[in-house]
Amino acid sequence: MTNSKEAAGNVKWTIRVGSGSPEVLIPDPKPARRVGLKGLIVSFVSRVYCFLEKAWDLGVEEPRKVMHCLKVGIALSVVSLFYYTRPLYEGVGGNAMWAVMTVVVVFEYTVGATLYKSLNRTCATFLAGALAIGIHWVASKSGEKIEPIILGTSIFLLASATTFSRFLPVVKARFDYGATIFILTFSLVSVSGYRVEKLLALAHQRLSTITVGTCLCILIGMLIFPIWAGEELHLLITRNLDKLAKSLDCCVAEYFSNSEDTISSNEESNKNLQAYKCVLNSKAAEDSMAGFARWEPAHGHFNFQHPWKQYLKIGGRIRNCAYCIETLNSCLDSENQAPEVIKHHLRQNCLRVCSKSTNVMRELATIVTKMKKSPKIGVLVEEMNDEVQELQNNLKSLDFLIQPPLSEAKVPENKKSEASLTVTTMPLVGVIPLVSFASLLTETVARIDGLVDAVEELEDLAKFKPAADDKPKPNQPNNKKILPDDQRENEQTMAALQRV
Amino acid sequence: MTNSKEAAGNVKWTIRVGSGSPEVLIPDPKPARRVGLKGLIVSFVSRVYCFLEKAWDLGVEEPRKVMHCLKVGIALSVVSLFYYTRPLYEGVGGNAMWAVMTVVVVFEYTVGATLYKSLNRTCATFLAGALAIGIHWVASKSGEKIEPIILGTSIFLLASATTFSRFLPVVKARFDYGATIFILTFSLVSVSGYRVEKLLALAHQRLSTITVGTCLCILIGMLIFPIWAGEELHLLITRNLDKLAKSLDCCVAEYFSNSEDTISSNEESNKNLQAYKCVLNSKAAEDSMAGFARWEPAHGHFNFQHPWKQYLKIGGRIRNCAYCIETLNSCLDSENQAPEVIKHHLRQNCLRVCSKSTNVMRELATIVTKMKKSPKIGVLVEEMNDEVQELQNNLKSLDFLIQPPLSEAKVPENKKSEASLTVTTMPLVGVIPLVSFASLLTETVARIDGLVDAVEELEDLAKFKPAADDKPKPNQPNNKKILPDDQRENEQTMAALQRV
Repeated sequence: MTNSKEAAGNVKWTIRVGSGSPEVLIPDPKPARRVGLKGLIVSFVSRVYCFLEKAWDLGVEEPRKVMHCLKVGIALSVVSLFYYTRPLYEGVGGNAMWAVMTVVVVFEYTVGATLYKSLNRTCATFLAGALAIGIHWVASKSGEKIEPIILGTSIFLLASATTFSRFLPVVKARFDYGATIFILTFSLVSVSGYRVEKLLALAHQRLSTITVGTCLCILIGMLIFPIWAGEELHLLITRNLDKLAKSLDCCVAEYFSNSEDTISSNEESNKNLQAYKCVLNSKAAEDSMAGFARWEPAHGHFNFQHPWKQYLKIGGRIRNCAYCIETLNSCLDSENQAPEVIKHHLRQNCLRVCSKSTNVMRELATIVTKMKKSPKIGVLVEEMNDEVQELQNNLKSLDFLIQPPLSEAKVPENKKSEASLTVTTMPLVGVIPLVSFASLLTETVARIDGLVDAVEELEDLAKFKPAADDKPKPNQPNNKKILPDDQRENEQTMAALQRV
Repeated sequence: MTNSKEAAGNVKWTIRVGSGSPEVLIPDPKPARRVGLKGLIVSFVSRVYCFLEKAWDLGVEEPRKVMHCLKVGIALSVVSLFYYTRPLYEGVGGNAMWAVMTVVVVFEYTVGATLYKSLNRTCATFLAGALAIGIHWVASKSGEKIEPIILGTSIFLLASATTFSRFLPVVKARFDYGATIFILTFSLVSVSGYRVEKLLALAHQRLSTITVGTCLCILIGMLIFPIWAGEELHLLITRNLDKLAKSLDCCVAEYFSNSEDTISSNEESNKNLQAYKCVLNSKAAEDSMAGFARWEPAHGHFNFQHPWKQYLKIGGRIRNCAYCIETLNSCLDSENQAPEVIKHHLRQNCLRVCSKSTNVMRELATIVTKMKKSPKIGVLVEEMNDEVQELQNNLKSLDFLIQPPLSEAKVPENKKSEASLTVTTMPLVGVIPLVSFASLLTETVARIDGLVDAVEELEDLAKFKPAADDKPKPNQPNNKKILPDDQRENEQTMAALQRV
């Protein structure tokens, strides 16, 4: 493989040189045509190699996708067996191909998507078949001349109307595939030209083969390493929460890092900094997964009617935070930067706000993952808001940094000694970037608050239970951090009470 | 129709009351069961009515969608005629159903999507058919026992591998549908159990019916009111630019409006304010349209290899601006607001920055729409940046508003009289919201600059020509605003020169 790569390199070089000034530079005595042919082959091989390499990487990264592909292979092999078994073949006739077709078309990555397509396909085939046979019967009774007119008109009208219905959001979300199959079946039955009796037999066979195909897909999809759309959505939401927390951490740390620290910022931290970008465009994936999750039966911790819509709401709030973090990130590359001396005044406070916010986000991720209420979240939110309040207070106290227009303002007596040592006053404009950054951070925290509300709504809707190991004990109120001393005292009190 | 609605209202009311305390409140003497049945019917009718109403609204709003549906109806009716014509039917046999199926599955809203599916379907059928016949031939020569093993294994391997390839972004973007059809055709041919000679005849027929179906779809799609994916993408980008401009205008105007003005802000302005929200989630639509546009031949102003990828880049930059405007919007609802007196100092300046920025955005929309270079854009960008510069200077001069810590700073002599009349000094914290808003506005302008670059790249890539009516005239340099007086002077100079 290395050889082919090297060879590709050589050839490229030869070609590049060849297209320049051939008289002087060509070191390769071979005729150009042969090089071109060899080049083509080598470039083809190297492209195939590159493609396979990517495929391998994907397989290693996401083994579940490989598993899905094997499942498709198994389903198709099984349905082929079904086809090969001659007795069945004789009975079901050429219609058995519908079972193969059903498996190919219906088997999707998640159970929800497979169920959605299966149910849509079966119901639409049944409805369209019944309707088509009815219209066919009416048409056949109307005489030879009118028959094609009735059939043609009904196809035109139904196809147009059904296609139009697919543009409606309600239909699009739940019955898009069904609408296609409806048109397909209706057209096929209408124009088949068979007599009604034969059609009924045919419809029965077709429906039964389709049912066999869908059942096979559903069974294999649900029994062998099932991939649930609901669980994927659930994981996506928690992953997005973690990514946001990482990004926020990195962003604030980077903003307040000294220039020496910046050098040490490696690829890893840059990747973390950009993690929020995946979140910005996750709406489409969330919507489709929530749509499929609706079709799934109870599995794992999820009931049949788990409030998947609330996950979309949480996803929206997460994106809201991501927009803010995106803007916050642009402060890093901005031309206008507050001097380090000024940044220093809010550094610790901002870092604390950030760490408290990411604590909240990580706790939210834990709540969603474990599907248990957290007794800590109240405290964490409070701590976060306290830090923001302190940031607001600190912003107020920045007054003394601002150089009054003619530098005639006196530094307050109590800050005088401190000021003469450390305070460098400066015009407002020097402080603006820092103040903007702090405001954006405050706005981010406000949005995290909104996120907390959305997760709390989910707790209620999905009836999350309190975490088992965190049940509030009588003497350990959860909203209060207990110091070791307090705890000992409490235990003594408890012992005293028990004695009484 | 109004009746059914009213009735629905009545019934709902009855049911609600009925489920409360029936003894006292039920005013309706009818037995509950009959009400339930009537209620079901009425609620069904009203739901159907509601559905039809939505469909009607959609049809009125987007007549092109209605046109698409009629086109599908026409294509299906034509293909049915093809089926009905007995001589053709005899020749092509039961395979003619593949033509119907092709039309149903391949006909998409845009020409690009139809072409993508058509080409994928035809090529994949051909490739898979050829491969399957080859393997079938080998298997048939290997003896009865080994035959099913060879066929089963080949189906398993090819189905798994092809399904896996669909996860790769390269394949996903261009050959997703082809991969499905490949598996389908391969399985159907492999397990059909026919002899190779019969298979060849069958494959020939199937391929020809599929070709008839795809050609019909492509012709109808391209000839009757064609909807081009490229044009849709093009329109989406310009519409998004307009929406952003509207949102920015409304947002800044709202921020600086007095409380009396706010009352007059109606539904329309609220709609404009929220217009940017459509932009935030337009990535999926843009990606898919750009993917389909690639398949389209030259049409309108677009060549075959029009740089559609650059539209995606522009779309990304537009979303970048939208994120910033989103954050800007949250300043409107923030608890911390600068007092009107303070806002007043930057009001005119910010409004000008905003109006200059929206001018730039609207000019960019015009450039993209008309596909002509604009001579004005340079001036507009310059004006925008000048205003931002002025905003920066104004921010610097806000110093004199800040109340020094102990109010001992003297107001500069030259501003003293002014200050005593109009300047209300206040602590830094009162100014912060305004300063943050101004910073965000500056950041938005910086992002608009990036957007201008992306559009200029498009100009180069797509070789836009200069606008015909805006060719720079010798005495009207475009980069300078000409005052009426200047112009008169210029004309006089010109006349003098001509006399000489």
